[in-house]
Amino acid sequence: MMATAIEESLAQQAFDEIRALSPDTEGVSRPAFSDIETRTLDWLAGFARANGLCVEEDAGRNLLFCLPEHADAESWLLIGSHVDSVPMGGNYDGLAGVIAGLLVLIRAARRGQRFRRPVKCIAMRGEESAWFGACYLGSKMLTGQLPQSELDAPHRGDGATLSEHLQSLGIDTAPLAARQPICDLTRIEAYLELHIEQGPLLVERGLPAAVVSGIRGNFRHRLIQCRGEAGHSGAVPRAYRHDPVLAFAELMHRLDTSWDHLLRTGSDLVLTSGIVGTDPESHAISRIPDTLGFSLDVRSQDRSVLAQMRDYLRAQMDDISRSRGVSFDTGPEVAVAPALMDPDVIAGLETAMAQVTGAPFTMASGGGHDAAIFAQAGIPSGMVFVRNRNGSHNPDEAMDLADFMVGTSILSAYLEAEE
Amino acid sequence: MMATAIEESLAQQAFDEIRALSPDTEGVSRPAFSDIETRTLDWLAGFARANGLCVEEDAGRNLLFCLPEHADAESWLLIGSHVDSVPMGGNYDGLAGVIAGLLVLIRAARRGQRFRRPVKCIAMRGEESAWFGACYLGSKMLTGQLPQSELDAPHRGDGATLSEHLQSLGIDTAPLAARQPICDLTRIEAYLELHIEQGPLLVERGLPAAVVSGIRGNFRHRLIQCRGEAGHSGAVPRAYRHDPVLAFAELMHRLDTSWDHLLRTGSDLVLTSGIVGTDPESHAISRIPDTLGFSLDVRSQDRSVLAQMRDYLRAQMDDISRSRGVSFDTGPEVAVAPALMDPDVIAGLETAMAQVTGAPFTMASGGGHDAAIFAQAGIPSGMVFVRNRNGSHNPDEAMDLADFMVGTSILSAYLEAEE
Repeated sequence: MMATAIEESLAQQAFDEIRALSPDTEGVSRPAFSDIETRTLDWLAGFARANGLCVEEDAGRNLLFCLPEHADAESWLLIGSHVDSVPMGGNYDGLAGVIAGLLVLIRAARRGQRFRRPVKCIAMRGEESAWFGACYLGSKMLTGQLPQSELDAPHRGDGATLSEHLQSLGIDTAPLAARQPICDLTRIEAYLELHIEQGPLLVERGLPAAVVSGIRGNFRHRLIQCRGEAGHSGAVPRAYRHDPVLAFAELMHRLDTSWDHLLRTGSDLVLTSGIVGTDPESHAISRIPDTLGFSLDVRSQDRSVLAQMRDYLRAQMDDISRSRGVSFDTGPEVAVAPALMDPDVIAGLETAMAQVTGAPFTMASGGGHDAAIFAQAGIPSGMVFVRNRNGSHNPDEAMDLADFMVGTSILSAYLEAEE
Repeated sequence: MMATAIEESLAQQAFDEIRALSPDTEGVSRPAFSDIETRTLDWLAGFARANGLCVEEDAGRNLLFCLPEHADAESWLLIGSHVDSVPMGGNYDGLAGVIAGLLVLIRAARRGQRFRRPVKCIAMRGEESAWFGACYLGSKMLTGQLPQSELDAPHRGDGATLSEHLQSLGIDTAPLAARQPICDLTRIEAYLELHIEQGPLLVERGLPAAVVSGIRGNFRHRLIQCRGEAGHSGAVPRAYRHDPVLAFAELMHRLDTSWDHLLRTGSDLVLTSGIVGTDPESHAISRIPDTLGFSLDVRSQDRSVLAQMRDYLRAQMDDISRSRGVSFDTGPEVAVAPALMDPDVIAGLETAMAQVTGAPFTMASGGGHDAAIFAQAGIPSGMVFVRNRNGSHNPDEAMDLADFMVGTSILSAYLEAEE
């Protein structure tokens, strides 16, 4: 089912007009639970109604859209994403998934297409962690998974808590604090989300879109301190050194080698040390440093690979500590479990992708998404990625409308009733 | 020849009284070409005269001491070191070598010991780079090796140039600028220097002293920038990463492995990356960094090992650049040639050490010393190291007087006339 010129121009109009509602000095800013977010939802409501859809608001002030014949459905497939953005972000992270959901409904309305099950599109608030320091707020509220600590988290700008921001939007926070889902989750048969890819894989492979197999979980250490012993760079022989820089180099080289091996044997894994540094107060060219600090971020969609890497990391730190006379103080570990997409939904989306592009392609998601929250709430979930250059969370996000239309066509094909 | 209690107490007196002349909030400070340095030399002159030695001042306002019978010698063996210190440094770096030279003369005068050749002791000014940014100023002046750039270098405190400081001491800078040696170098038959070890080798080996085989040269890069490509820590697959942290880890691991191999085959080498860091302006736990900066300091007393490591470094950077899609911008290299001690002097000191301690032990010097400047001026040179804890250039330098007396006994035994 090819996109028509009219459908493309509707999508273009939505992206353009919402971009114009939320400009920043660079890119766009649509803060979570802000007036700009509300104005964006208002615009979407008008757009949906003008295109023949029904609009309702839930108790979290998210919007739901559907075909008129599904307004009173008992249960439905939910399709959507979030409308907020990071500060000075791009226009597509989140918004593309909402507009894709609307476009699937509008296309069905225009063509008289029948869905296999009733479908609702959701435009959610508050996914980005940039505003209150925690992410997926909207989908956590929806599924009753928002912890009190996040309700109490202060806004980066005005310092008021998330609770206060929600209350000023007229949202009742008592059920949220009691971990009550905003809607009856048993009525959501599945959750589908289209999102721009935040990495370069589709660009590198020359593919417009992909089916997502799962969302990588991770374990992270914000700051691992490797402590050795300071000394004169010229005067301490190798045998008497306890050099934290060479210890770090050996550790990272071992992790890197193990990573390469795991990929060759088919495992999913990425690992990154994004922050590395000797102490600027004491480091010098001619001094063996006494400490080196570094962060570590290890991600996989496979829980057992994360466990394996956690064990491997500990074993290597122990081994290098012994052989080099250094110590590693890892500080607390922060972990997020992987969220696998539903096998039946994956298979269905792969079939749909084969219909649209000729061949399916499936990949893991490195970034987190609302779909992980729905999956953790026990709702079968699936995602479609759309090719995007320059990553996300920056004004240079670059998604071609043609690729976006391929992504929406995959969703339409998946949702279409079998003959 | 064992040290007597009187000799030990003279040494203790000299260390204590000079420490009291030059206190800082921590440790001692004896700035190069300062009044404190002059007062230290004045104290030494009085101490020498009180113990029966002749004292003269050269055109660089360094002091020379000798037995009365050698005051008019045609040529001599020179023994000494520097009296200045770094800011808040220890009392022994430099001063130990001057007091050792005086003690050798005082011991000969007290015992009627005859030297193989006339001996003069020198107390030099200005060795530490802490004050004018350049080191070995006194010995460079003495041997006509002081470049104009160092005469023009500003003092870290008052900003006045070295030339201005020298002139305020009444030193004529015109011959220095013309690179004329302060004294007739042909009259110096050899240069000997006792110095505290700046590394832990003698502590680790349980030895009081050592003969020095040579002073390591080095090549250094203040800042090597490894440039890769930033990306989302979760979303960029390994095959598409250009991670400067993993590139650095691989490079350092290769250098470390090669270092280990060179030591096993008998080469002299130390290497240090003392400064390492991602960019605090842009680094983050969940971001593959785009750059990592690091310093590199490679030292050996063997010129060919330095050349070999320089080639190896370049080859490995090229290889890793190709395999990882990163680049290394090394910036300028700063190099100092190694200074080998004279083989005959080494052999003589080893024989002397065997007489004093039972067995000789010879090691390379990692730090630089005035002896390197004399060696580069073509004067056969030798050094004796004395065991010292906690390195140098800090208030915690810790030399035992008993070890110091072993070091002076080695010098005395070397200088003694053969029967």
